[in-house]
Amino acid sequence: MSETARPAIVLVRPQLGENIGKAARAMLNFGLTEMRLVAQRDVWPNPSAGPAAAGADIVLDQAKVFDTTAQAVADCQHVYATTVRKRGVTKPVVGADGAAQLIHAEPGRHAILFGPERSGLETEDVALARHILSVPINPEFGSLNLAQAVILVAYEWSRLGRESVTSALVQPTAQEETLPPAAQDELDGLIGHLERLLEPRGYFLPQTRAAATRRTLRSVLTKPGWTHLEVRTLRGILSTLERDRHPKD
Amino acid sequence: MSETARPAIVLVRPQLGENIGKAARAMLNFGLTEMRLVAQRDVWPNPSAGPAAAGADIVLDQAKVFDTTAQAVADCQHVYATTVRKRGVTKPVVGADGAAQLIHAEPGRHAILFGPERSGLETEDVALARHILSVPINPEFGSLNLAQAVILVAYEWSRLGRESVTSALVQPTAQEETLPPAAQDELDGLIGHLERLLEPRGYFLPQTRAAATRRTLRSVLTKPGWTHLEVRTLRGILSTLERDRHPKD
Repeated sequence: MSETARPAIVLVRPQLGENIGKAARAMLNFGLTEMRLVAQRDVWPNPSAGPAAAGADIVLDQAKVFDTTAQAVADCQHVYATTVRKRGVTKPVVGADGAAQLIHAEPGRHAILFGPERSGLETEDVALARHILSVPINPEFGSLNLAQAVILVAYEWSRLGRESVTSALVQPTAQEETLPPAAQDELDGLIGHLERLLEPRGYFLPQTRAAATRRTLRSVLTKPGWTHLEVRTLRGILSTLERDRHPKD
Repeated sequence: MSETARPAIVLVRPQLGENIGKAARAMLNFGLTEMRLVAQRDVWPNPSAGPAAAGADIVLDQAKVFDTTAQAVADCQHVYATTVRKRGVTKPVVGADGAAQLIHAEPGRHAILFGPERSGLETEDVALARHILSVPINPEFGSLNLAQAVILVAYEWSRLGRESVTSALVQPTAQEETLPPAAQDELDGLIGHLERLLEPRGYFLPQTRAAATRRTLRSVLTKPGWTHLEVRTLRGILSTLERDRHPKD
């Protein structure tokens, strides 16, 4: 993946060092490393940021500090303003997934702006952006904090980056986990074994229902697509059940 | 959206009340309200949970407490075990997006298990699940905390719920094929029944292998996702096998 496809995460006037650290941690979980800080309230480096980053120090160490949002995104071709409230905006609105799609599709540098913890981005910050990034949340309870907003964006960026490689949403299990279903003759062996146990105990009576009962039995046992190993386990179970309960009687 | 399409979030042995509160906040942001707690370390209600929930009190107030994971998911047809490490698992692995697709596509109740903060889910918890839910993260820095894992799952559930209105990513199967899997307690009943038959016949010997053998048995029988009717058929088979071979001897 080219470096330009990795968006910069721009924290505009963040209040708490702890939240800067948490944002760094959220970023690095999904492979984002470029943090930019605009007019953070406290001194930088901030002693509260490191512990909250939980090991994502590389993100904090490389973070660049700017006086204004405009300076922070000066080298970026694509700027997104993250906001919950869409107050009379006239810019296209995308979700975290839509933004991730654009980042992977559009050449150039991308930057995503996140506002201060309580107040959010100012109108002048939003004005720098071509897109509004708004994660649709519960209208009755919108309470995303800074690191949560960052992690959703980082997650989507990572997810859609992988997806472009393999479009399968439900990943097949790893090689060693994808044993194929047992061959039909093995399954038949299992079903036959069970039928031999059931027959003398009257399971297939009355005779008029026997064919339907056998079909049901086969259908239930065919559904799982058990592997060779699983069928062997089940054969062992049936052999055990064949034994008398009290072998010494 | 039907209530069954809203997954229950099951926190297994959570350590800190603060993290339970943060998970509640993460859930409610995306409209999830059903939290279940299994053997939380501290007393419940936990005084640290409320402040961390940042207003998501309804989730905490309605949270149900269980002694065991099995009890917590007894009424659920679909159980997902969230884990970062995929150590020799033989269950299908889905991401948060894949799980969300299944939740919206498959009828029945869904429950997502999250392990304790540091250690994650135990093998016995994972054994209850049909799917592993694993969010692919930076292999060099995997540091998702509990609330972050919860918010990603809740976000995907919300995102794909909105999407399914416009475009069905997963085609639902035809009406007559969509009997949901039996609830977990029915499956437990089946497994328990079989174990009672096998135990006196020495199937679980040697004792040192008994736990692993029970896990294998559970895993083989969990795989199919049998319906209520299918489980009933299998219970009938086991009852038949309990009978003597020659009732008249």
